Amino acid sequence: MKLYGYWRSSAAYRVRIALNLKGLHADSIAINLADGAQSDPAYARINPHGRVPFLVDEAGHGLGQSLAIINHLDRLYPEPPLYPADSMARARVEAIALTIACDIHPLNNLKVLKYLKGPLGKTQADVDAWYRHWIVDGLAAVEAAADPDGPYLAGDQVTVADLCLVPQLYNARRFDTDLSAFPRLLAADARLCSLDAFAAAAPERQADAS
Amino acid sequence: MKLYGYWRSSAAYRVRIALNLKGLHADSIAINLADGAQSDPAYARINPHGRVPFLVDEAGHGLGQSLAIINHLDRLYPEPPLYPADSMARARVEAIALTIACDIHPLNNLKVLKYLKGPLGKTQADVDAWYRHWIVDGLAAVEAAADPDGPYLAGDQVTVADLCLVPQLYNARRFDTDLSAFPRLLAADARLCSLDAFAAAAPERQADAS
Repeated sequence: MKLYGYWRSSAAYRVRIALNLKGLHADSIAINLADGAQSDPAYARINPHGRVPFLVDEAGHGLGQSLAIINHLDRLYPEPPLYPADSMARARVEAIALTIACDIHPLNNLKVLKYLKGPLGKTQADVDAWYRHWIVDGLAAVEAAADPDGPYLAGDQVTVADLCLVPQLYNARRFDTDLSAFPRLLAADARLCSLDAFAAAAPERQADAS
Repeated sequence: MKLYGYWRSSAAYRVRIALNLKGLHADSIAINLADGAQSDPAYARINPHGRVPFLVDEAGHGLGQSLAIINHLDRLYPEPPLYPADSMARARVEAIALTIACDIHPLNNLKVLKYLKGPLGKTQADVDAWYRHWIVDGLAAVEAAADPDGPYLAGDQVTVADLCLVPQLYNARRFDTDLSAFPRLLAADARLCSLDAFAAAAPERQADAS
């Protein structure tokens, strides 16, 4: 398998954690988003959507969207499972993951920040406030949904919700977001980051980190 | 079951279609987003996140996030299935749904439009241009991923991708978005809207439509 990604892409970070938890290897191919490499014609031939992450499997089939990639890997390689077996418990994990993947992350995507600065003419301070606003708004819902007894967001099992949490908190810290209102999330994050699968997926540990 | 929703919420619209396709009934409870009813303390006790849709099942368990709700219903009531059986085919349907649910819809959420007008001081024309920009950007990826032979986005089977497409195109038309670059999507949409399950879920057919 090949995984097209970028060290600071938090969506790619989610997929890296999933691969590590499953004990799977994918060749990492860096697409430098900061340099606009996602718009290169060579990459467009591989992934017309021009986003990362993008997985190409052994058969040459390509797949985008981090949660779709993770769910596919979880079906093909079911151990360890990334969701609870009970349908409602699974749905609640999905809801947490989607709160991060839909309600927070897309608003802070690089394309969006560029639109705020370019066509909308906003300052860096406006952009920073925007970034933090959506993180705090969305994480409040995640904090309310987190298992108060931990150790992870949905209890004893590491789930896709945790795979979304850790990269989101990494982004929050990059933008100096005040996270003191989220003690459950901070406790889960500290435990998760100490696990090898999460530590090895950290942005600074990637070959393209700069 | 109870479904807290709003006639113009496109995420609630997705869930209404799923219920109809499965032949399920949920009592509809309208939360008037235009009047700020999602912030009422009475609703906060039911759904602390204050968003719609929100499903409460027969056992009283609550669940937010439209795709989590739809996936839960699809597991409990598997006929007709809303995903292909093959894992990669399923993942590609998930990727289309997530392109709409993550890359388009959250950027055009009412909360976001209010932030653009309020704290960022943008005009209605700026907001309209923003709205259309993200629709056109995201739908280009959906058009590229759609089955060129139709009849629906992923071929002969109505899938969750279709449940996301129709409400998104409804929103696009509300904001006079030029959709001429998306012939596959327009063809699929026309066929889908002629199906009873989709027609009965349309915003104007809901009791709270105004």
